[in-house]
Amino acid sequence: MPGAAPKRTTIVDVAKAAKVAVSSASAAINGRPGVSQATRSRILAVADELGFVPSLRGRSLSSNRAFAVGLVIQRDINVLEEDPFFGSFITGIEEVIASRDYALVLQVSHGEQETLERYRKLALNRRVDGVFLNELRVDDPRVRLLRKLDFPAVAINAADDLPVPTVRQDAEGPMRNLTAMLVNLGHTRFAHISGPSEFVHSQLRYKAWRGVLTEAGLDATCVVDGEFTYRGGEEAAHRIMRGPDRPTAVVCASDLMALGFIRGCLDLGLGVPDDVSVTGYDGISMGVHSRPQLTTARTNPRQLASVASEMLLDVIGGVQVANRTIPPAEIVGGQSIGPCPCSVVGV
Amino acid sequence: MPGAAPKRTTIVDVAKAAKVAVSSASAAINGRPGVSQATRSRILAVADELGFVPSLRGRSLSSNRAFAVGLVIQRDINVLEEDPFFGSFITGIEEVIASRDYALVLQVSHGEQETLERYRKLALNRRVDGVFLNELRVDDPRVRLLRKLDFPAVAINAADDLPVPTVRQDAEGPMRNLTAMLVNLGHTRFAHISGPSEFVHSQLRYKAWRGVLTEAGLDATCVVDGEFTYRGGEEAAHRIMRGPDRPTAVVCASDLMALGFIRGCLDLGLGVPDDVSVTGYDGISMGVHSRPQLTTARTNPRQLASVASEMLLDVIGGVQVANRTIPPAEIVGGQSIGPCPCSVVGV
Repeated sequence: MPGAAPKRTTIVDVAKAAKVAVSSASAAINGRPGVSQATRSRILAVADELGFVPSLRGRSLSSNRAFAVGLVIQRDINVLEEDPFFGSFITGIEEVIASRDYALVLQVSHGEQETLERYRKLALNRRVDGVFLNELRVDDPRVRLLRKLDFPAVAINAADDLPVPTVRQDAEGPMRNLTAMLVNLGHTRFAHISGPSEFVHSQLRYKAWRGVLTEAGLDATCVVDGEFTYRGGEEAAHRIMRGPDRPTAVVCASDLMALGFIRGCLDLGLGVPDDVSVTGYDGISMGVHSRPQLTTARTNPRQLASVASEMLLDVIGGVQVANRTIPPAEIVGGQSIGPCPCSVVGV
Repeated sequence: MPGAAPKRTTIVDVAKAAKVAVSSASAAINGRPGVSQATRSRILAVADELGFVPSLRGRSLSSNRAFAVGLVIQRDINVLEEDPFFGSFITGIEEVIASRDYALVLQVSHGEQETLERYRKLALNRRVDGVFLNELRVDDPRVRLLRKLDFPAVAINAADDLPVPTVRQDAEGPMRNLTAMLVNLGHTRFAHISGPSEFVHSQLRYKAWRGVLTEAGLDATCVVDGEFTYRGGEEAAHRIMRGPDRPTAVVCASDLMALGFIRGCLDLGLGVPDDVSVTGYDGISMGVHSRPQLTTARTNPRQLASVASEMLLDVIGGVQVANRTIPPAEIVGGQSIGPCPCSVVGV
């Protein structure tokens, strides 16, 4: 009969097969005292043999927990498909929660209001015991909401002053290094293809780029919002690479934008890195496969997610947790940057 | 206090604010008789104003449902990241289930045994009310398991004889068309870069390719397993494109493999489509962005997932459902195929 609950082995079946009282079977399976070690072992062996799986609902009721954590991905429907971040991120979550019999409730939303509403419902209807706060915005309304509801949450790559436990992978250092590499190669005309400015990580990456240029006495005003998409990067190339005084070094806030930017340059007849050096950020596999291989900083979404999951399960368990950091993104590749063509051709 | 349940508006608060008995508030909110239409409207308005969200746990207990559906993705950890299928697929699920207050429980597994164990637990511990069966294998053990447990499931692109409700998007027609296009362009030396043969969709795509060639009296023995990865496609190019009697038309069972194959050809100094025509399958955005733009069949994972979700919610609800099909994948692009170079240079 479709829709019926599956036939399952109950604790009564286990007790019967092990020839013990149901209360003893329950004590053995739930690790409570009241049975000898020998009896406990025998009961567990029988439970295993019968394929007994403790009822999640029973466990939920007795502990007042859902044994699930929530993640809401806010994306334009057509952008989610090309974003390689989430496969790694979800894998990292699973590595931690699965072994503790927690599950991931994943939702997709298409705008800030909807995202907020999703978090509110996840918290209030007790669908999950805690949530991840990913892709934080400047003054993110989710933070206030979850504080108000006093709901367990862990943030990923949030700003320093966030009143929520946070795991971070430093973006400032690697972005400064990428920019400094280009300064050292003799470049003087720079551009930055940024993510939307409302995101904390867009701001951090932009500020690191600007900081290096300002310290070097170079202009840091050519900034285009590439919306973290391939198309956005491609369009940015068409906007800023047509004139004779075009930049020779372009630092992009994501790999997808960098790959789109390179595509746009090639369509304009410009060589990378001969005419323009381009760097990305993320370290996605598309950048490794592309030619020229992308110079970028390889982040670690899987590790970020694993650490965030450990922290979140602790917060749910009532444990006080400190903020954590994972090692910074590593600079990889190197075929998409080269010496400034100005110095070569004497422009 | 971390870990504590959030402060939430209860039905008692609603009853108090609306100045009615709790039983009346409950009847109004749960759509049961016992209150006048005017009182019901007033109570609902108050509930709304107070931000009342019905308890999922209460709803679960009274209905014996989890109000969640399950999806297990079996992937090598390093492959999941580059696969753009799941973003679209998950979006399609969400489009249907969110409006019916269902949630998606997403799991990642790394091997067939683990996948089977995940499905068993999802069913037995009542974490979800039903599951999707994606990426079916020939004689897939999940089918027997779920039948045995009598657990609601809907399959995606399964073989014809599966005893589980299934949604399909025809792959045979588009694969036949892609292959026939190449035959019509004068090609006679063909290869197929396939997915692993244990998958139903690998088999369907391979058979369509072989069918067209056999009917045209052409050889259909050059088949390489590219494992549905970019790297697999790249390696396949190095294996079969070195000799002078190399194929001039290569039909790949996925876009990622086709893009890897093209990369491999370029590294060998072969032009696409001048030396070899290459087709993909899926219609991922990377294929649109790449140069030459990939000739492929654009599938619709989002629509597949939406239809599968509608079917699954019906099955969970005890409704008998028929198999469904969505329109076949459309041929798109066209820059990666051209006339057979044999006829041009007279080889």
